[in-house]
Amino acid sequence: MYRDRTCGELRLTDAGTEAKIAGWVQRTRKMGGMTFVDVRDRYGITQVVFDQERNPELWEAANNLGREFVVQIKGRVEERASKNAKNPTGDIEIFADELKVLNRSKVPPFTIEENTDGGDDLRMKYRYLDLRRPNVRRNLELRHKMAFEIRRYLDSEGFLEIETPILVKSTPEGARDFVVPSRMNPGEFYALPQSPQLFKQLLMVSGYDRYFQIAKCFRDEDLRADRQPEFTQIDCEMSFVEQEDVIRMFEGLVKHIFKYVKGIDFTEPFPRMTWKDAMEKYGSDKPDIRFGMPFVELTDIAKGKGFGVVDDADLTVGICAPGCASYTRKQLDELTNFVKRPQVGAKGLIWVKFEPDGSIKSSVGKFYTEDELRAWGERMDAKPGDLLLIMTGEAMKTRKQLCELRLEMGNRLGLRDKNVFAPLWVIDFPLFEWDEETQRFYAMHHPFTSPNPEDIPMLRTDTGNVRATAYDIVVNGTELGGGSIRIHDAELQDEMFELLGFTPERAHEQFGFLMNAFQYGAPPHGGLALGFDRFVSILAGLDTIRDVIAFPKNNSGRDVMNESPSPIDTAQLDELQLELKPLKADKDK
Amino acid sequence: MYRDRTCGELRLTDAGTEAKIAGWVQRTRKMGGMTFVDVRDRYGITQVVFDQERNPELWEAANNLGREFVVQIKGRVEERASKNAKNPTGDIEIFADELKVLNRSKVPPFTIEENTDGGDDLRMKYRYLDLRRPNVRRNLELRHKMAFEIRRYLDSEGFLEIETPILVKSTPEGARDFVVPSRMNPGEFYALPQSPQLFKQLLMVSGYDRYFQIAKCFRDEDLRADRQPEFTQIDCEMSFVEQEDVIRMFEGLVKHIFKYVKGIDFTEPFPRMTWKDAMEKYGSDKPDIRFGMPFVELTDIAKGKGFGVVDDADLTVGICAPGCASYTRKQLDELTNFVKRPQVGAKGLIWVKFEPDGSIKSSVGKFYTEDELRAWGERMDAKPGDLLLIMTGEAMKTRKQLCELRLEMGNRLGLRDKNVFAPLWVIDFPLFEWDEETQRFYAMHHPFTSPNPEDIPMLRTDTGNVRATAYDIVVNGTELGGGSIRIHDAELQDEMFELLGFTPERAHEQFGFLMNAFQYGAPPHGGLALGFDRFVSILAGLDTIRDVIAFPKNNSGRDVMNESPSPIDTAQLDELQLELKPLKADKDK
Repeated sequence: MYRDRTCGELRLTDAGTEAKIAGWVQRTRKMGGMTFVDVRDRYGITQVVFDQERNPELWEAANNLGREFVVQIKGRVEERASKNAKNPTGDIEIFADELKVLNRSKVPPFTIEENTDGGDDLRMKYRYLDLRRPNVRRNLELRHKMAFEIRRYLDSEGFLEIETPILVKSTPEGARDFVVPSRMNPGEFYALPQSPQLFKQLLMVSGYDRYFQIAKCFRDEDLRADRQPEFTQIDCEMSFVEQEDVIRMFEGLVKHIFKYVKGIDFTEPFPRMTWKDAMEKYGSDKPDIRFGMPFVELTDIAKGKGFGVVDDADLTVGICAPGCASYTRKQLDELTNFVKRPQVGAKGLIWVKFEPDGSIKSSVGKFYTEDELRAWGERMDAKPGDLLLIMTGEAMKTRKQLCELRLEMGNRLGLRDKNVFAPLWVIDFPLFEWDEETQRFYAMHHPFTSPNPEDIPMLRTDTGNVRATAYDIVVNGTELGGGSIRIHDAELQDEMFELLGFTPERAHEQFGFLMNAFQYGAPPHGGLALGFDRFVSILAGLDTIRDVIAFPKNNSGRDVMNESPSPIDTAQLDELQLELKPLKADKDK
Repeated sequence: MYRDRTCGELRLTDAGTEAKIAGWVQRTRKMGGMTFVDVRDRYGITQVVFDQERNPELWEAANNLGREFVVQIKGRVEERASKNAKNPTGDIEIFADELKVLNRSKVPPFTIEENTDGGDDLRMKYRYLDLRRPNVRRNLELRHKMAFEIRRYLDSEGFLEIETPILVKSTPEGARDFVVPSRMNPGEFYALPQSPQLFKQLLMVSGYDRYFQIAKCFRDEDLRADRQPEFTQIDCEMSFVEQEDVIRMFEGLVKHIFKYVKGIDFTEPFPRMTWKDAMEKYGSDKPDIRFGMPFVELTDIAKGKGFGVVDDADLTVGICAPGCASYTRKQLDELTNFVKRPQVGAKGLIWVKFEPDGSIKSSVGKFYTEDELRAWGERMDAKPGDLLLIMTGEAMKTRKQLCELRLEMGNRLGLRDKNVFAPLWVIDFPLFEWDEETQRFYAMHHPFTSPNPEDIPMLRTDTGNVRATAYDIVVNGTELGGGSIRIHDAELQDEMFELLGFTPERAHEQFGFLMNAFQYGAPPHGGLALGFDRFVSILAGLDTIRDVIAFPKNNSGRDVMNESPSPIDTAQLDELQLELKPLKADKDK
């Protein structure tokens, strides 16, 4: 062993003892005949003193240490004259008797500190150095602890973690699969799983009534800012359960994690909201309920007053921003410009100020009387000093736009504190989604999602309004995960496939082995999956999942550290009986 | 919830209570006006009684239940008249008041019992039914428990589980990679990792001094009986450690697993054996030390007596099989045929019987006097009644052949009890392996393995005898895993590459990003990896890893249940800019 103590553990009570530590040189300071070296490892930083008088040669050697050199130091722990209360080891220092350079280091391309001078690209290229930074380290420590606590909770509840394959069957439906050519089966391909969905349902057929897996999943999608081609899912399934059982079990899991990882004890049940309410009140199926400002509809009282935009609209709806009547013209213009950005896409914004003195100012004063505007204010519970922000247009579009504005106002008013956590179940999702382009219904979740038993009679008569037995868990406006009760009845499943436009042949081709399995006694079952990367990033208070992944890929799916993907040998392609196609195929050939 | 009790939990103390259970019909027996239905779930089997007198309709319904129907039953728990001591629930039965068929089942293609009538192929095709069998279920339960205990031990020792990528860079060296074409980077490929080796070494550079991961690994090899294209590894690495530290830590892990999973407490340190001793005493680098019969060399006293086979041989070596002097001619012929099988490949077998009456019989009686044979017996510590089995020839070949014979004798003598566990560290592996064909040295483990510091001066003068700081852990003659201390010194690494015939360019091309990382302060480090599938199979007392994997692939790398790999759409190939090559390429084109 190169050390007998870590760089994070020495305290005043250790003063007088001998210690051997090893780590990286964080920094050196030469002050007259004394040189101070901060040595860092995973556990902390310890100050080491080299005294020219005591040992001139050692002092000299210490003066030659560079940043990030790997050193081993032996010496005596002594109480510091000037203590550093910010560092847990700040009460002591080590007076060095021995110094061994275990390895040298080139000057790192950026500073290895909490706030680094390295840009994103540089940090990713040298990810192994970036990972030395204490904040990145804390993210991975958090990730480890969360994974461990997830397993501890689920194990204690009788769940079995069962590994399902990574080399699976390709299915053309859904997102794009990554495929893996099979050398032993030329011309054939495995796919990497987008989720273990089919396998976990098979496990239910097999009687493993409480299954989970912290599983790698893969999607070959064009990557948005916060997607990764491979990501990690907490995948769970239970048998002989109803929605209430699943919700209770995984609410327990989320509470366990908050309690044992963050020290936050949720004693009340998480609130629940129907999808319909979520859309109507927050314009989103994942509302951020850390703050209020719910939507209030004004359509009935705003229409028919001669303001064309409102008169032609399906919906006029607003939020009441408390205390914002003081907003300047510039601030209001900013908000108008915010909703007009292409990412939001609104045409404009109506505002009504309820001044503290009781007067009213509004962008639509020429269409509405003060009494009419006062009626708006009453409905929206506006107090003197509040500001109404109102949008109008096609219902769903307008709600989504107002959702963006509400979140923006939450940010501006400081209502979205990263240290406040507001979990929420969204339930009663629609079973189907209508697609205008192809003029047919698609499954909002997947074709195995069970309809709400009450709505089964409506399947053919009022398809669009059938509710699914599906639920999402949302934290702070981010979807943490979701799931559903699955169909275990073969007839109902056939009806679903028919409604979704699958011919029996196509259904069999894609889901045949699951359908076959279901003929041998499928139990009622359901489950859910939580995005593990997302879960960690929420608890870490981060906006992206990239910072909680040790070796993430960039937006082109590249690992810029090891330069993958990369070309492979022709010999390797030959073995796989594959050929690269020229970028532009010559069609006349 | 469809149940309030499982099928495994009801006891005599529950008699008189109401219970609701759900599960699969294991079997039904009609005895006069009573029908008995055994209902099975993951937790056990409970007997349910339907009484024609009490409820004729329900009794009728019970008589219509088929095997593997999914049922829900409500009733009263009652003490059984004739108890079944073999079943934990055998003291009670449920008198049914309600029966609900939750799902029907086709007749399964084989019996869902410990000993099934289903052949291997059929069981794999219907793996979801095979997984219902209690022995298969116990394997997966064992696997879950082991994974959990591994994590519990390593977490308590300060290890962090860190996920490394599945989409990695392809490296031409080593076993064949599975590759994954990148759509976003046309013409380029990811590889699936053969192990997280490079990433875990990077993590050491990053300062994560105790890393582990239960990781999926992939090798595109022609599959031998007990290989899988994807397998699971317990991958570990530590910094600032020497061999002794690594061995102590992971011996602790293995002991923890035996203790908390099998209830076996290893209080003594595991024995250690050098690779040289293992080869000389057992003819294997993974000796089964559940039993003795070590090799004893007779070369010096057997040579020069006019027996040409022995006179020409490098090595004459034997084992002493206790009490086997009674072996018949037929048994001895069997042993001779055993070593002559092509899998073993010996030319013949010499035997010497030390009869209980003091006389000696031998297959080589015409070349050796009784005194000479008695000298053999003395050296081999033969007692009256023992049998010497001796082989002769080229040293390494002969040892490997005798190893097979020793294991066979162990089997015949019942010395290889699956409930006895004999762990062993094999240390001091050679650093290099000489390859006759290419006339050069190869790394026995991998090119980052550190030489034994004592042997560094011999690197160029006695290359073949340089010992590595590498170690394997062996249980019952099976390699459970192994590892090494890695080179962290850039100069030594360069020397290794040179000795292994890598040009600096090629070394850079293959390991460049690791070499770059090493320039920024690599700490001394080392680790090991244990085969998780193997570890589970050893504790389950199984010969193959397939039975501890939920959804294994067959020897052609196929999943016969879901028929993968499979052809994919041309559209998908087009997107990847790939073309299938015709099976026979037309060379004249």
